[in-house]
Formats: sequence, structure tokens, C-alpha cells
Amino acid sequence: MHNSKPHPFDPLTPVEITQAAKIVQDELPGALPNFRVITLQEPPKNEMLHFLEQEDHGQSHASRPARKARVQVIIRTQSDSNEMVELIVNLDQAVVCKKDHLPGKHPYIDSAYMQAVESACRADPRIEAEIQKLKLPEGSTVVIEPWAYATDGMGDMTERTSMCWFYMRLSDNPDANYYAYPLDLCAEVSEQLQVTKIYHLPSSEDDRVSEDARPYDHNKVNSADLSEYHPSLRPPPRTSTKPYHVVQPQGPSFKTDGNLVSWEKWTMRVGFNYREGLTLHDIRYDDRSLFYRMSLSEMFVPYGDPRSPFPRKGAFDLGNDGAGINANNLRLGCDCLGVIKYFDGWHNTMTGEPVKLPNVVCCHEQDDGILWKHTNFRTQNAVVTRSRILVLQTIITVSNYEYIFAFHFGQDASIHYEVRATGILSTCPINIGDSVGYGTVVAPGVLAPYHQHLFSLRIDPSIDGMLNSLQVEESHALPIDNPAIHNPFRVGYTTSSEIIAEEGGLDLDFSKNRTFKIINENATNPITGTPVGFKLLPCYSQMLLAHPQSYHAKRSEFGSHAIWVTRYNDDELFPSGRHTMQSPGGEGISSVIQQRKEDPDSKTSVRNEDIVIWHTFGSTHNPRIEDWPVMPSEKMVVGLKPVNFFTGNPSLDVAVSTQERNRSVLV
Amino acid sequence: MHNSKPHPFDPLTPVEITQAAKIVQDELPGALPNFRVITLQEPPKNEMLHFLEQEDHGQSHASRPARKARVQVIIRTQSDSNEMVELIVNLDQAVVCKKDHLPGKHPYIDSAYMQAVESACRADPRIEAEIQKLKLPEGSTVVIEPWAYATDGMGDMTERTSMCWFYMRLSDNPDANYYAYPLDLCAEVSEQLQVTKIYHLPSSEDDRVSEDARPYDHNKVNSADLSEYHPSLRPPPRTSTKPYHVVQPQGPSFKTDGNLVSWEKWTMRVGFNYREGLTLHDIRYDDRSLFYRMSLSEMFVPYGDPRSPFPRKGAFDLGNDGAGINANNLRLGCDCLGVIKYFDGWHNTMTGEPVKLPNVVCCHEQDDGILWKHTNFRTQNAVVTRSRILVLQTIITVSNYEYIFAFHFGQDASIHYEVRATGILSTCPINIGDSVGYGTVVAPGVLAPYHQHLFSLRIDPSIDGMLNSLQVEESHALPIDNPAIHNPFRVGYTTSSEIIAEEGGLDLDFSKNRTFKIINENATNPITGTPVGFKLLPCYSQMLLAHPQSYHAKRSEFGSHAIWVTRYNDDELFPSGRHTMQSPGGEGISSVIQQRKEDPDSKTSVRNEDIVIWHTFGSTHNPRIEDWPVMPSEKMVVGLKPVNFFTGNPSLDVAVSTQERNRSVLV
Repeated sequence: MHNSKPHPFDPLTPVEITQAAKIVQDELPGALPNFRVITLQEPPKNEMLHFLEQEDHGQSHASRPARKARVQVIIRTQSDSNEMVELIVNLDQAVVCKKDHLPGKHPYIDSAYMQAVESACRADPRIEAEIQKLKLPEGSTVVIEPWAYATDGMGDMTERTSMCWFYMRLSDNPDANYYAYPLDLCAEVSEQLQVTKIYHLPSSEDDRVSEDARPYDHNKVNSADLSEYHPSLRPPPRTSTKPYHVVQPQGPSFKTDGNLVSWEKWTMRVGFNYREGLTLHDIRYDDRSLFYRMSLSEMFVPYGDPRSPFPRKGAFDLGNDGAGINANNLRLGCDCLGVIKYFDGWHNTMTGEPVKLPNVVCCHEQDDGILWKHTNFRTQNAVVTRSRILVLQTIITVSNYEYIFAFHFGQDASIHYEVRATGILSTCPINIGDSVGYGTVVAPGVLAPYHQHLFSLRIDPSIDGMLNSLQVEESHALPIDNPAIHNPFRVGYTTSSEIIAEEGGLDLDFSKNRTFKIINENATNPITGTPVGFKLLPCYSQMLLAHPQSYHAKRSEFGSHAIWVTRYNDDELFPSGRHTMQSPGGEGISSVIQQRKEDPDSKTSVRNEDIVIWHTFGSTHNPRIEDWPVMPSEKMVVGLKPVNFFTGNPSLDVAVSTQERNRSVLV
Repeated sequence: MHNSKPHPFDPLTPVEITQAAKIVQDELPGALPNFRVITLQEPPKNEMLHFLEQEDHGQSHASRPARKARVQVIIRTQSDSNEMVELIVNLDQAVVCKKDHLPGKHPYIDSAYMQAVESACRADPRIEAEIQKLKLPEGSTVVIEPWAYATDGMGDMTERTSMCWFYMRLSDNPDANYYAYPLDLCAEVSEQLQVTKIYHLPSSEDDRVSEDARPYDHNKVNSADLSEYHPSLRPPPRTSTKPYHVVQPQGPSFKTDGNLVSWEKWTMRVGFNYREGLTLHDIRYDDRSLFYRMSLSEMFVPYGDPRSPFPRKGAFDLGNDGAGINANNLRLGCDCLGVIKYFDGWHNTMTGEPVKLPNVVCCHEQDDGILWKHTNFRTQNAVVTRSRILVLQTIITVSNYEYIFAFHFGQDASIHYEVRATGILSTCPINIGDSVGYGTVVAPGVLAPYHQHLFSLRIDPSIDGMLNSLQVEESHALPIDNPAIHNPFRVGYTTSSEIIAEEGGLDLDFSKNRTFKIINENATNPITGTPVGFKLLPCYSQMLLAHPQSYHAKRSEFGSHAIWVTRYNDDELFPSGRHTMQSPGGEGISSVIQQRKEDPDSKTSVRNEDIVIWHTFGSTHNPRIEDWPVMPSEKMVVGLKPVNFFTGNPSLDVAVSTQERNRSVLV
């Protein structure tokens, strides 16, 4: 049963959060620290491997790694400005083992502060005067949405700056969709909550920011039918969709013991932190090691509108916002069907008390159609099995957008990572009748600018052990004119492959069937005679469109290649760096690789080493009007499949599908 | 209710099949025709459009197009050889309106004839002698699998030739997996059922066909655990998978009236024929016309092993085998869950009687996760809807392989076409310990050669009418050094697009976010100001690897480009030509386009015309051992989504997801 002592991969318990806060408070006497983060500092991998090996052998845990917390606080400095201090706390020994003052760095967005920004903006008489000049419809309410400032080189990068975008709610209903009414107003707010600039936004292709106020064009007021998504503001819904229940009379096929999930030969540990949200650890199939850790490691959403101040829209949804802190409280029967197990997360208040984030991860099963089938045409005997998948899902809200992140585990030892983008488009005003080359008019006066969503899935493999290699395989036609090559009928083809030697970024090419395999060169498949491996089924996506010399590119870095391979390092979890808020750039994955290449004491070889694979994927989202006023899910899927890892189909032993068992109904 | 007179899109009724056979019999007195095909000759589109318009207006059907049958028969000629005759029969007038003698052409594979080939081969004393020389394990049974001969330029292309591949069943069980025991023997059989050649197969990289018999290596005998998939030959299955029921207490959300399916604002007509299997006609959403016809139009499976006789393995699974004739009889509770409606197909016997093909298409609903969600972070009010999809599915068995073809209709007006490949790999012998550059050793002595599966999805659009265009859009960064282009922060990007003017083939490029839109330039979206359209979400796939000068390439043609656009012509349904059996090549989509370009009387413009889009996709299938002895489904998905077709999210009116309605259960 669930051990009372947390597993080394378990997130901090409420007791541990309190303990860490106390230790930090004692370390910083009189500082009244604002606790931004109290999270698990995961154990060093070398300690963990030793622990896992002992655990696997059922040994007592003599070498249990120390429980540690990573704590970020904001303190007031003597010069009366804010400074971030990051501390590593050893909870077992109740000591601070590391303390870094990080002047000029900012932790993730502080929602309490953002509310203060909003209030300060609203209270500023100049803003009030500008709002008056807009001559808004009677009964409307102005909504101010503060965003983190995406560095554009114009502002101060060391002091926190916020951008306030203005919208309007037409209705008294607080759930009215204010993104349907972007206003021609924008304000920049300083760390000290002073409005430092007020703009009017460009409203046509050649328009630029100005100080001139223009009254609101009342022709932009749309019918609720075109602009509202909330049921309280919509006509009654369609009634044609009949109920659909998933019934599991014998309960689920999975078991949980604390954060350990066991299902259909799979085992894994569920983790959760404020930044990445759901993380998975020590993923095994049939007790063979596959992945040490998997998580979404970053997400960047740059907007493509070149007109100032829109280049300041470029959101690091993990680094700036946090996939954990913004995880939805999932509701039974709404976010998934069937028999559901929820996991809670824990965060902390400003003063260091633990706060429960309820139901941030759900675990359930889904039917996934046919797993395998064959009909012997001689006997007409069909054998068919259905695919059951285990889903571990989390959903986040980042202002206007929602993202649904789900790991799908298959009985055939495949893993699929599915991302669904939904929610509401970010909008800005446009003159009625105008159009621009970098956005779609989704309602009269409403421009939904082009933008990209770039995700980085971090895959820390342990394919039959920690020493792995990345093999790139392509399929090529055999030449037809080389007498040394036998290809008389010109139909032959073969594969060529290369094992990547050095850290770096690589690109996809479906036209060559370019396949990325994570292999273990020390373990040979007894039948195929080739190294055991897993292959990546990538999500083919356009990379970052912003120019390499732009701040967007310098700050994100991972967006320039689809595949990155690096050596494993305990603290390298984030491909755009740990501190993305107003980051100046040059802290991402390619800079880290470059620094190692230039450092004679650093190793950069990735062949038969402990490696990490990072897959960049996403969408170039040039909005359709069908994405408005709320966007039907856009699915993106990345897969991992065994390739010559087993000695045959690992789902061969799944029971045949029968009506007796499945109870379908004939119309 | 269901009209007693068939709808013009309905497949032939049993009565009509009988009637067509009688008319053809009368036309060919004394010929004793072997009826290979009696299928609907779909009405000319110009007649159908007129009919559909009247139908739409509820008018009586004065202009109902004539019911016609397309009939293929084999007759004995005076020179005592077989000849195919193709006839078009007007059933309303009981006359033959067209009759073509097609010497040298062959209809699809005749399973009765293939059984005769098998028997002739087995009865041949030379074959018997060769089998003796193999010294097979006691109690084993030789299985002979005849294949159509994929033209390689060596044999006679006008007379039908069959290739017999030899396997062995180790067990008495007729469901034993004989593909696990490929034998070193191969025979060529003539139209006249004579064994014309006997080969021994190459068994290593440099080995070639020979006349020398080599005894079977008994070390190749594997344990059932590695080679058998049938439950009767396997240990008991895993018991960890608990039952999972889909319960629809109020029944399905779809309605059918004959072949008309209505569901969630969608309507469409289900068709079925021996060759394409499932076809869909007159697809509409909210009564707006979207697609006149959609179907899988061809599928080619070329093998990449260059050694003779393997270049003769290249299967047109539609043209040669038939997706309709090989459609599985789907079983309740096995092939799908929930409330299922089945459609039967009808085919004909050799003598022209109707034969029912039961349950060849199933229609059911599936839950598809979250359709859209938004949480207003200010009110914490979440609105979430679940996606229900309608599935129209058919499954075919082509010797060793299975394909699961399913159209998924979404409430957001999207269509996804999902292909799953499963079944058993085609195998050939290899010496134990050897390996080759174009196959995977999946069991000792068993080579699964590299091959491709190339599908052609034919999309006949009618986006708000028949005059459509293909627009190719790309996303490009704005230049940073052009003073005329405003891009001061180097982050801007825009789209460029081209409307295709002429028939031809096009390629995919995700690195430019190249997007293929089918638009109607005559219908402008009232809000976006752009033409209404649907965009293709392609399946990124490597194209045909066989050299353009190979017979594989000349015979398939569609495999050289991912997207083809052609003018609509009533009889252009098949991108490798109508008669693929032993086709010499030059009858496919690129040849047809080329011929029109060279013909001054032919039009080749495709802008604002009645056009057809063909999408080539598939997989370069270099087998994994995990595909053995039966392959976990490999999924390929193609999508179609509205793009500025509606005035907003068409699924905005889907009711919110609630626990009251969905009844999930907490663990």
C-alpha cells in the first residue's frame, strides 16, 4: 500500500511545503519573502538510478535521495526594489543548500500583481480620460487584460513591465466574451504600478500606434449569436445529440498506489509542478525501462503582426504562465467519460502556506477502436481485438486559450502525446472594411492575428538502460545505373542510417521517410539482430517564423529545429532557459549546446550516452472564422513506438473482442 | 420513409442485378458469360445535379436519371481464349447502351479462378517433386497462395498470369499462421492453368532465383508463441483488461432512411461497390453542399526487394482485389461499440445472381474527447462541450493484410478519413543468420520485406456549388531588409497564396505551412471577405520509391505527387486507370492529364471549374518485429476542415457537457 514516506519522484506534500517555507523564512530574517514557488527539486539522476535499482529488487531504501525543495521568493532589496532569490532546501536536513540572488530575473507571472496592475491602470485618470474619449456603448464595461511584456528591445528588460490590453463587455453578464470587443487602447505599466505609456493601436495595414484617441465605431457591435460562447448568452443548444455513457461494470483496468500508476503491463509515476504541470517518471512496460522522464518543457506563442506594440505579444505559456499553476480543476463527467481517478496538485500562497490545486490531472481509460485484426480468408475466421488506452490528462487555461495535454498509453507499448488547442483567439481592433496580411477578420472590427503555437516535448529516454543513441534512418530508392547494385527492375529501395554523434538540432523530412529512433546500442534484439529502440512519430510542423535576429527567436531558441538531442544534465529541463520572463535571449537550448562546444572541459557527444530528445512541434495558426468565438479543438499528436524492442507484437495477448463482453446494440 | 424506387446514388438492388444479367445474357447469346461485375453505373453529374436540385426543392422527380448498370463479363472467344466485355445497361429501358470488347484487359482477381490456380499448382507432379525435396517437418501442410502478377516486363502482359507463393502450416489447425513459414518455392501459372515456371527464391542478399532445390532448414521452426496470432494456438490472454461498454440509453443521434444518413446537421448518402467499397455522395452540412462524392479510389502496395521474382509483388488492392468484394462481414460488439447500424452490399455470382455481402459498412457514434472549452479566469466559470463523431467504417481483408477505412464526421463540420493498416506481413524466406538491406527478420528464417502502402483519396468537392478552385497558401516571414515592408521587430509573417490554373500534381511542404484549400471564388464569406472554402489536412507521407522508369511507377502514377487536381469527368474515378490487372502502365492520372494537355480540343483549366482533388498518402512500411505475427494498427489520418466557410464555429450550439448527462464514475 501507499508508503507514508513520499517517493522521491512525488511532488512536495503540504507538510513539506510548510517546512520549506519555514526554513527559507529563517534563512531570510526580516525579509517578508513573497513565496512564488515551493516545488520539488527532483533528485539527481545518479542518486535516483541507484534508488530505483534497489526499489526494483525490493530492497530497503538505504540510499533514498534527500527530499529537496526549490524555492523562489521575491524580496525587497535595500534599494527598495524587488529581487528574486532562488533557494534549494534540503528538507531531510532542514538546511538551505544553495541560495542565488538573481537580479534582473523574474519568476512566472504573479496573478495577484497582475490584478494590481489592472487596478492601477483602471485608477489612472489619464486612462479614464482615454476611455471617455472612446464613447463606448451605454451599459458596456471596460475589461483590462494585463500581459507579460515580450521583450522587443524597446523597454527595460531588467524591471518588470506589463502590457495592458483593453476590451469591452457589452452585457452585464460577467461571462460575456470581452475578446469580441477589443478596444483601441493599450497601456504599459511599470513594476511600480505606474502607467508609463498609453497607446492607441494601429487599426489598418498602414496605421501605426498613436496618441490620438478615436471614438469607438458603434457598427462594431455584433449580435450575441456571432460573438458569445457562454450558454447563458446563447440560444438554446441543439438537442439532436443523444446521451453517450461509458460504463465499466468491473471498474477500471488501472491501479494507483499514491502516484504510481499500473495499467496493462505499464507502470509510471505521476508528477506535477507549477511550471510543467503533469510530468511522468520511470515509465516501464513489462518492467523494462523505457523513459526516465517525459514532460512538456516549454511552449511559445509568438504573434506575427509586425506593427508595434504587437511584437510584445509572445507568450511563454510554461516559463511565464505555468502549466501547473494554470491547470483546470477537472470536473467529473465533463472533461472525460468513464471511471475517473483524479490527482490533486499542491502549490503555495505568497506567505508559504500549501494550497491544494484539486483535480489537476485525470486518469481514465478509453476505447480506441481496433487494435489488430486478421481474417483468414481460407477459413473466414476473424480475430479482432479492441485497443484500450490509458489517458493521463491535464487542461490549462492561459488567459484566452485552453490547452488539453494528454498522454495516451497503448497496449501495444506505444505512447501518444496529444495536444488540443481550444479557447478563444486573442484579438485586436481593426477598422470595419479593412484587412491586413497577418490576421483574419473574425467579426466586424475584430482582427484575430496570425500566430504560432510551438511546443517542446522533452523526452528523457532510458531504453533498456540509460545509455542511448539517436539514430536517423531514411528510405531511399536503390540506384538504377550502378552495376554494383542489384536493381534490375528499378523497384528496389533500402534504408540508410546515421547515429548522431554530437549535440544539436535536426529537421524532419517525410519525403525521405526520415525516422528518428532512440536506440540502445548495448542491447541487441535477439531476432532482428539490430539494437532495441523506440521511434518518434513526429508532428510535422512549421518552425518559428520570426527572424533569427528577432527577440522572439533569440528568446525561444527551441523553435528553430524539430528535433534536438542533448546530453542529460540534471538541471536542463527548459529549452528556452529557466527564466523566460522578459528574458534577453541566448539562454535556450542552442546557446547551451554552443557554450558546451566552445568549452574544452565540456562533453558534447551523444552517442551511447545518457541523452535527452526534445521535439518541437505546433501549429502556424492563421485563424479561420470557424475558430470564433471559441475554437473547436485543434489536435496535434506525437507518438513513440517500439521498433525492434520486443520479440513480437506486445499486444498479442490482448483478449479477442466479443459481443458477450462488449454488449453493443443493433439499431 | 424509404422510397420504394431506388435513389439514383443507391447501389443496384438485387432485382436490378438480376435484370442487368438477363439483359446482358440476351445480348450475348450462347456465350455463357462469366459475370465478374454487375454494379451501378452512377448517373452523369449534370443529370444528377438537376435531380438533386429538384429533390432539394421537394419537387416530384420528373428528371430522375436512368438507372444503369456497368457489367463486366468474361466470354470465350472463337479462338478459345478469354475476353473481357464491358457493357453499360440501361435498366429503365432494358437495353445495352454500350458494349466494349477489351482484349488484353483483365477484370479484378477472380477468387474461383485463383482457387483453380492453387489446385492446378498443387496437382502438378513437378511441384509435388519440389515439395518433396524440401523435406518439410512431419505433419506440416503446404499452403499455396496465388497472387496477381505485378507486371515487371518479363512476362506476357495480355494473358493472365498468376504467381504462386508457398507457405507451410505447422499445425493441423486451419487457422495456423502459414505466413510464419514462407517456403523456398515459387511457381508461375498461366491463364490455362499450366505451371510455366518453378523458382527457388533468393535466400540471402546476393542470392538469386535458381532451379536448385534446397531442403528446408528445420531450425526455422519457431515456437507458437512467436509465430501464431490465433487464440486457439496461443496461451490464455491477459485478463487485466476490464470490460468497457458504450451505452446510448436514448439510442443513436443519427437517422437512416435507406442509404440516406442524417446526423447533427450532416446529410450524406452511403454507396458501396465491388471496387471502392464504401463511397459517400452528396455530403452536406446544414443543407449546404460540401462534397459531391468521396471515396478511396486506389491503393498500391509495391514491395522494395529488388531480387526477382519479388518485383512481381505490387498489389493494386482496389483495382486488382476490390475493397468492396473483400469487405469484412462486421460483427456486433467486435468491430465497433455502442449502437450500430449496418449496411449490406450486393454483388453477383458468376452466373449473374445477386449475392448479399452482409454488414459491409457500419455506422455508429463515438465520443471524441473535448470539442471546445473555455474557462473565464475572472469568473472561474468553465464551459466545456464533448465532441461526438459519426463513423462510417468498412474493413477489408486482402490476403495477409487488413485495412480499416473510416470516415469521421464532426459536429464542427470537419471530416476525417482514418485508415488503419493491420493484419499479417507478407513474408519470404531468408537463411538463418543472414540479413538484407530491404527487409526485417521477424522470426528465424522469416523476412518481412520493406514495402509501401500508397492510398489515393478522391475528393470531388462541391463547396457551395460545383465551381471550385484549389488555392495553395503558404506562411512566410516578412523580410527584414526591405524598407517598403514594415517589420521593425523582425517578427512579422504573412501568407501568400496561388490559385492553381492547370491540372497537375503538387507536393506538400510543412516547413512553409503549405495549405491546400478548396475554395469557391463565387461565394464570399460575409465577415472575412474571403472565398468560402475547406482545407485539406494532409497525411505527410513519402511518395513512391520505385524509379519513374519502373513498371511500378508507370502503372501506379498517382504515387508521384501528394495532391492532384483534375477537371471533373464522369468516368475518371481511378488514378491508375480502370484496368489495373497486369496493366502495362501509362493509364493513370498523370498520363490522362498529359493527354489532355497535348489535345487542343481538351480543356485543362481547373480554376473556377468542376474539379476533383486526389490526395496520395500512405506509409513506407519497413516492418518492425512488433508488427509480427499480427500488426498493431498503424493509423493514417486525412482531414477536411471548413476555412472561412461559416460565419463562426459551427459547433457553438453543441450542448455543454454535464455529469448529469454523461454519468461518469469516480474511482
